[in-house]
Amino acid sequence: MIGRLNHVAIAVPDLDAAVALYADALGAKVNAPQDEPDHGVTVVFIELPNTKIELLHPLGKNSPIAGFLAKNPAGGIHHICYEVQDIVAARDRLKAAGARVLGSGEPKVGAHGKPVLFLHPKDFQGALVELEET
Amino acid sequence: MIGRLNHVAIAVPDLDAAVALYADALGAKVNAPQDEPDHGVTVVFIELPNTKIELLHPLGKNSPIAGFLAKNPAGGIHHICYEVQDIVAARDRLKAAGARVLGSGEPKVGAHGKPVLFLHPKDFQGALVELEET
Repeated sequence: MIGRLNHVAIAVPDLDAAVALYADALGAKVNAPQDEPDHGVTVVFIELPNTKIELLHPLGKNSPIAGFLAKNPAGGIHHICYEVQDIVAARDRLKAAGARVLGSGEPKVGAHGKPVLFLHPKDFQGALVELEET
Repeated sequence: MIGRLNHVAIAVPDLDAAVALYADALGAKVNAPQDEPDHGVTVVFIELPNTKIELLHPLGKNSPIAGFLAKNPAGGIHHICYEVQDIVAARDRLKAAGARVLGSGEPKVGAHGKPVLFLHPKDFQGALVELEET
């Protein structure tokens, strides 16, 4: 069912330092920051040959990553995103297997403009998993 | 400098449950478990179209992931691995940029039979980063 790994998201407390690290020390292709006020984050995409790294930094009040950074002040790997062809079918299959979907359970439009869902980490061996329809 | 994302590693407390989750609920291609006594882990590779997920479960005493699972009993995303063409050159560039290499600082042969190094999470925005020479 799941397809490509769309991205790995890393929550970072210092976006400038993270950009410098990936662009200079790691020599990766780093895109310009994008503010996503509807999602409460500023996002920087790092393009690898086979997938992306998504740096997430809080934007505004009530950012969904503020709690994570309060618990992990140095930052950390926040979630992984798998592509699916049909997000509603994927959700229903996972719910039938006992997995919990976060929030309302209905897909929302994510930071890439495509339907996404987040799955409960307790049902995925501690990993926060995003599904994105492609 | 960095190339492909070689894998994302997830430390799991229950390997059978994790295999069932990825094979059945997520419908991914899951390989047979491999015991790696020299590395203190049992590894299961999940093949995605563009990269791999590596499930890690402790094997024997002094497993390098025992501490992580003690802190994260449900499991969690443990590290990400970037490919590099020349691991010694990559290490020297990162050290010159102020990053710390874990252990002796010399590459070791990793679970895939290739030279690897781990970098200090404090220098990588809280993410444990492995480099693998390909």
